Amino acid sequence: MTVLKNDKKSPNVVWHESQVTRDMRESQNGHRGAVLWFTGLSGAGKSTLANAVEARLHAMGVHTFVIDGDNVRHGLCADLGFSDADRVENIRRVAEVAGLFVQAGILTLTAFISPFRADRTQARKLLGNAFVEIHCDTSLDVCESRDVKGLYKRARAGEITAFTGISSPYEPPEHAEIVVQTGSQTIAQCVDEIMQWLVAQGMIHTEGEV
Amino acid sequence: MTVLKNDKKSPNVVWHESQVTRDMRESQNGHRGAVLWFTGLSGAGKSTLANAVEARLHAMGVHTFVIDGDNVRHGLCADLGFSDADRVENIRRVAEVAGLFVQAGILTLTAFISPFRADRTQARKLLGNAFVEIHCDTSLDVCESRDVKGLYKRARAGEITAFTGISSPYEPPEHAEIVVQTGSQTIAQCVDEIMQWLVAQGMIHTEGEV
Repeated sequence: MTVLKNDKKSPNVVWHESQVTRDMRESQNGHRGAVLWFTGLSGAGKSTLANAVEARLHAMGVHTFVIDGDNVRHGLCADLGFSDADRVENIRRVAEVAGLFVQAGILTLTAFISPFRADRTQARKLLGNAFVEIHCDTSLDVCESRDVKGLYKRARAGEITAFTGISSPYEPPEHAEIVVQTGSQTIAQCVDEIMQWLVAQGMIHTEGEV
Repeated sequence: MTVLKNDKKSPNVVWHESQVTRDMRESQNGHRGAVLWFTGLSGAGKSTLANAVEARLHAMGVHTFVIDGDNVRHGLCADLGFSDADRVENIRRVAEVAGLFVQAGILTLTAFISPFRADRTQARKLLGNAFVEIHCDTSLDVCESRDVKGLYKRARAGEITAFTGISSPYEPPEHAEIVVQTGSQTIAQCVDEIMQWLVAQGMIHTEGEV
């Protein structure tokens, strides 16, 4: 962009302002920015799967980042609780931050329950075709029997209110780009499925080349 | 990280969970993640300078991103106004997001007035030695005489309340890593100064190599 500055001292100085764009950052990285949005019940394996996909992508030279509860619930969203309103605001902020990472040309992975369809629709609207919804489709029974963090037990005992699947709804995606059966398949199988989809869409190239 | 899963179906399955770390992303990029935090009055040239520094860095192959009012005030911080409390929250969120970009191994540039010393101290505390404070040190007189956006005129007329420098304080940094005289020097001179500092600190290598 060339701007003619109205500077009294140098009235005719033309300042050439280079702007680094998303396209330029994507060219530098060798792939497009996008968001792999993992959604599903607590215990469905969202974070585990997102981290495993990231590891595979990173090994291929793809520029990645995972946004999950671990790095935002104590930071950016530390002021938010788990009421419906706070969950909406939490997901709004995550979508906005994911949008900044897309602008930076990063293949971003988000791992949040994100139980409300309207919020995910909002994220999709904001991120456009950079948004890839991945439903970790594990039944409540399986998640509850795993109960890795002991949260379901506490929710059943009434110690945790508004717990998704027990006392707060989970609205499953109707048109997710990818559905993985994290209840019956291994993590490795789910990773393969996602990688194949990304290759088929031309978002990444086959392993070994970027 | 190797985790022994307590899975009833496969009690002895060891799942090797690879985690992509900040170090790994920085190795991939060839440089450390950090935050160049530009602070100064409205009209001091923070965004212009941040964009010019980014252009220089990008041309060298450095992985960069600018966070400024343009991409957060209408997005992540769209719910915030310009009251003292909202300014504090705005800067808190910017620091948190900058922290995520550092984790992603990105050389991040932020351009916000960030008028309160306590908020910048908080950002410094959060970001540790990744935080590089750059004071765009232009006098109020110069900024007001430029008045690129006509905001000072409106603030003087009382049409904008709590305007930094006029009706709200600007607390200059006491120990900024870099002070640039954006009032008396050209943008190119200021860019050179910042680039020399980054090279001297070993944060980037001399131009032409990354």
